[in-house]
Amino acid sequence: MSGHPGGSSAPTRQRLIDVAIELFKRHSVAGTSLQMISEELGLTKSAIYHHFRTREELLTAVMEPLIAEVAALVEAAESLRGVRARADHMLVGYAALAATHRELLPLFTGDPGVAALLRTRAEWGAVIERQMALFADVEPGLGGRVKAGLVMSGIASAAGGDFGDVDEAALRDALIAAGRRTLGLRALPGRDTRAT
Amino acid sequence: MSGHPGGSSAPTRQRLIDVAIELFKRHSVAGTSLQMISEELGLTKSAIYHHFRTREELLTAVMEPLIAEVAALVEAAESLRGVRARADHMLVGYAALAATHRELLPLFTGDPGVAALLRTRAEWGAVIERQMALFADVEPGLGGRVKAGLVMSGIASAAGGDFGDVDEAALRDALIAAGRRTLGLRALPGRDTRAT
Repeated sequence: MSGHPGGSSAPTRQRLIDVAIELFKRHSVAGTSLQMISEELGLTKSAIYHHFRTREELLTAVMEPLIAEVAALVEAAESLRGVRARADHMLVGYAALAATHRELLPLFTGDPGVAALLRTRAEWGAVIERQMALFADVEPGLGGRVKAGLVMSGIASAAGGDFGDVDEAALRDALIAAGRRTLGLRALPGRDTRAT
Repeated sequence: MSGHPGGSSAPTRQRLIDVAIELFKRHSVAGTSLQMISEELGLTKSAIYHHFRTREELLTAVMEPLIAEVAALVEAAESLRGVRARADHMLVGYAALAATHRELLPLFTGDPGVAALLRTRAEWGAVIERQMALFADVEPGLGGRVKAGLVMSGIASAAGGDFGDVDEAALRDALIAAGRRTLGLRALPGRDTRAT
């Protein structure tokens, strides 16, 4: 990604991941080949193979840290008492994650390559299911599940929208407010909106 | 699509569109070639070329009727008085569209191939912008724009979620309820929820 702090001296592995994200966004996962990534970086294919054997390995490396963050949020939220407090904790953390990774998150809701990878990694699929359940439990039934689906994918997609020159904290707070409205949660008095 | 009323006797053009939608969903637009579509149908490539010269022409044929429906909804909504009535009319129609085309709509929010096509068709991009404005005008400022973004992409994605054996009307009504909550709209008394 542009603005990477390491610039051209960053290790090849991280440069590969950054360029892969750019190309996945532009062409979708299935539309991006290791060949295209190597060309973009001016590297030989063998330089890539040293780090990643397949596009799926590279996609796994892109997704792994984000799934780990979501898993930690799910654990923390599930440890709280009360469906509303649990949903709110999950929402605040997820909105912060989406605002921080606003370039990347939209890829996660829409790309069939990501969906296919989630199907093959049962433990990742389980994390997403638990996140969904935290939102859906606020209102049992179809209505609650649809609202949960709207918040899950809507936050990820909306984070990537063009809102002009908006800083990360303002975007995060707007996503939290929208999610709370959808789920019927009130801001808890004195509750810090930052993810912990 | 399976269950197409015309079955194998449907005209080739419609069969091409149906199979293209299936493959776009499974592999993304960029990951689907005309070759793959012809193989899936057991047709020669020249049989396809007779109808569509490029993948983009085929994608255009997939999207055209949906964009036309959204454009008609936008026109009707804009003719109403009051930002809330306008937003609600747009929401009710959009939710009905998403419930009817629940297999197809998720493609529209996430696929970079669709986004690329929207960029090249200025009149289609303008329709989407007007739809977004109808939702965003309910609450001026960043908060309203983020809620509008959440509703736009959240409804399209959530419609494709796995809610078990839910019929179209129930899904539509749940999407309308979720969207109204997000945008801060109340159901108008006596207002029929069906799109007109």
